[in-house]
Amino acid sequence: MAQQHLDPTDPRPGHVGPGPTGDALAGYLRTQATEFLRALRLHRETGAGAHGTEGSAEAARALRRSARRVSASLHTFQSLLDTDWCEAMRPELAWVSGTLAMEHAYTARLERLLTALHRLSGSTAFPARTSAGVGAGAPPSKAGTPTQERGNLTVGAAKAGALLDRQLTLARTRAHSTALQALGSSRFHAIADKVAVLASEVPLTGTATGTDLRPLATAAEDRLRDAVTTLPLVTAGSPYNAAALIHGLSPDTVPHPQDAPWHQVRLLLRLHRYAREAVSGPKGNAVVDLRLLSAGQALNRHRDASEAAAAAAQAARTPRIAPATAYALGVLHADQRHEVEAARFAFQQAWQKETVGAS
Amino acid sequence: MAQQHLDPTDPRPGHVGPGPTGDALAGYLRTQATEFLRALRLHRETGAGAHGTEGSAEAARALRRSARRVSASLHTFQSLLDTDWCEAMRPELAWVSGTLAMEHAYTARLERLLTALHRLSGSTAFPARTSAGVGAGAPPSKAGTPTQERGNLTVGAAKAGALLDRQLTLARTRAHSTALQALGSSRFHAIADKVAVLASEVPLTGTATGTDLRPLATAAEDRLRDAVTTLPLVTAGSPYNAAALIHGLSPDTVPHPQDAPWHQVRLLLRLHRYAREAVSGPKGNAVVDLRLLSAGQALNRHRDASEAAAAAAQAARTPRIAPATAYALGVLHADQRHEVEAARFAFQQAWQKETVGAS
Repeated sequence: MAQQHLDPTDPRPGHVGPGPTGDALAGYLRTQATEFLRALRLHRETGAGAHGTEGSAEAARALRRSARRVSASLHTFQSLLDTDWCEAMRPELAWVSGTLAMEHAYTARLERLLTALHRLSGSTAFPARTSAGVGAGAPPSKAGTPTQERGNLTVGAAKAGALLDRQLTLARTRAHSTALQALGSSRFHAIADKVAVLASEVPLTGTATGTDLRPLATAAEDRLRDAVTTLPLVTAGSPYNAAALIHGLSPDTVPHPQDAPWHQVRLLLRLHRYAREAVSGPKGNAVVDLRLLSAGQALNRHRDASEAAAAAAQAARTPRIAPATAYALGVLHADQRHEVEAARFAFQQAWQKETVGAS
Repeated sequence: MAQQHLDPTDPRPGHVGPGPTGDALAGYLRTQATEFLRALRLHRETGAGAHGTEGSAEAARALRRSARRVSASLHTFQSLLDTDWCEAMRPELAWVSGTLAMEHAYTARLERLLTALHRLSGSTAFPARTSAGVGAGAPPSKAGTPTQERGNLTVGAAKAGALLDRQLTLARTRAHSTALQALGSSRFHAIADKVAVLASEVPLTGTATGTDLRPLATAAEDRLRDAVTTLPLVTAGSPYNAAALIHGLSPDTVPHPQDAPWHQVRLLLRLHRYAREAVSGPKGNAVVDLRLLSAGQALNRHRDASEAAAAAAQAARTPRIAPATAYALGVLHADQRHEVEAARFAFQQAWQKETVGAS
């Protein structure tokens, strides 16, 4: 199963000759399915116990990575694949990657917020558990004495950190259990069986092998470009526009309505990137790939900061917290909303380059 | 006393011929002294009662404006003026402008913070008392029911606004009384007498009428340029550097040590600007003046945001406030620290232009 299924004759954009067809898609899907199965085996070998390990966290990331690519290909190139199979497969893959993403998301969110609290306190020292805990699936028992490790924080910042630590560690522990249950469920086993079949047998339609992939990939790119035109890029490109903190104190802060179109573009950019991979192979046109990557990284940062800001706002609603704690959470919330604004600026800069490069 | 004392033959920079000498300085000082006396008469006519009026606030601004210019000229061109007179006069003028500045500063700070709270709450409506109260020396009795006027704020934002309103209105009322007492004091009458003498009789040294003003003005500009080189302009010119919020939660937030060199540059830029006025007349070289003005405005905004952020932090230390109030004050503090960062960016942009234009 570890053998490479990518067709070595896979045509690249700009090459003379006929474009890639359903055969190239089949090769891409087989590669991703193989990768999924390899990651699953690795996850089982590295121990999927109650606490997890660094290896199992890495394996879970690889599982999500391949699940996202298969799911995206099913979306973009749906017309080349068996309809019933696609419609049955896509929600299952979304469930797998969504369920596996939660533990990592809570870990990263806690790290982001504790790092910000230290920055805001002018502390150069990092909290020991933050750097150790990230991506390691660290056991919840480690979260015992966070305030001791933050001796150089103010009382408010230390209490805010301890509160966020408690809340997000609890959420992460629950997400870890949920992921383990999911991986052991009959629903997951059924998906793994289907992916194992996909690794050798891609359900292409009768005409797929003669159909050019590129118009479908271009359609994915068009959906991205259309969505980008709805973004307030002129505002985003003007530094310190203070747009991300508008409504920062309004009751409908979580989730922030103004972030939704950016989240949507993030998903469409990913679909576009995976469609490019399927069409041109993962190493095709590295220069534009870097631009897409930096635009995508800006949107990831946007999403992470948006969710971290929401977590700080949520923590501030905890009953009976001290005013100093609430104050620190307010500063932290605003700081993360400015990170949201900074990420939009970074996206605007990257996208501008991308457009110039493409013209 | 209302006649213009500015010498119409006052040479401008770039003009051929000898430079402006002590005579031009004397003309400038007589004009400013005359302006001071005019403003003082206006202030008495418009009523310097317990509550103040729009006219008296305007007159107080004019008083401060001329006091600052006389004081700055005494500093920059000290070697052309009687030493004992200068040393006696400067602290007195600083006391006048400082004392008169406080009421306006509290009014503007409250307006800035309430406007920010409304922006952060996504409210488009302005609080009625804010726009009416600015610069109007509004009576403290108007500050009665601020929460009613903020119906569209969240509870936390409304409570934070009411708390800031109470604290800053009290401070403003005290500053108003202090200013009135100062204007009625024998100390102030002695200063007004000296300014009345200055309006006709400037105590130049024996050699002043033959001494070129320009080297002294250039020395003031050099002191400004030297101070600017100590600013972290590379960081400031990179948007979203997040530098202004470092230490945002540390105990030594008020006053913020990192702001001090910017405040110092603000004062030196003002000295430079007034020295240019004395040398070239207020309408000399309007293009570069506009650049200096925008750099100066950025530094004013920096100072105002810095002090507003400190006021929000200070209000959050009020005992027994609700967590929602403290949270809103934390968001507000961080918002104003980002205003500080934005103002540094604006200064960097203006200064860059200024340097390019001067070369």
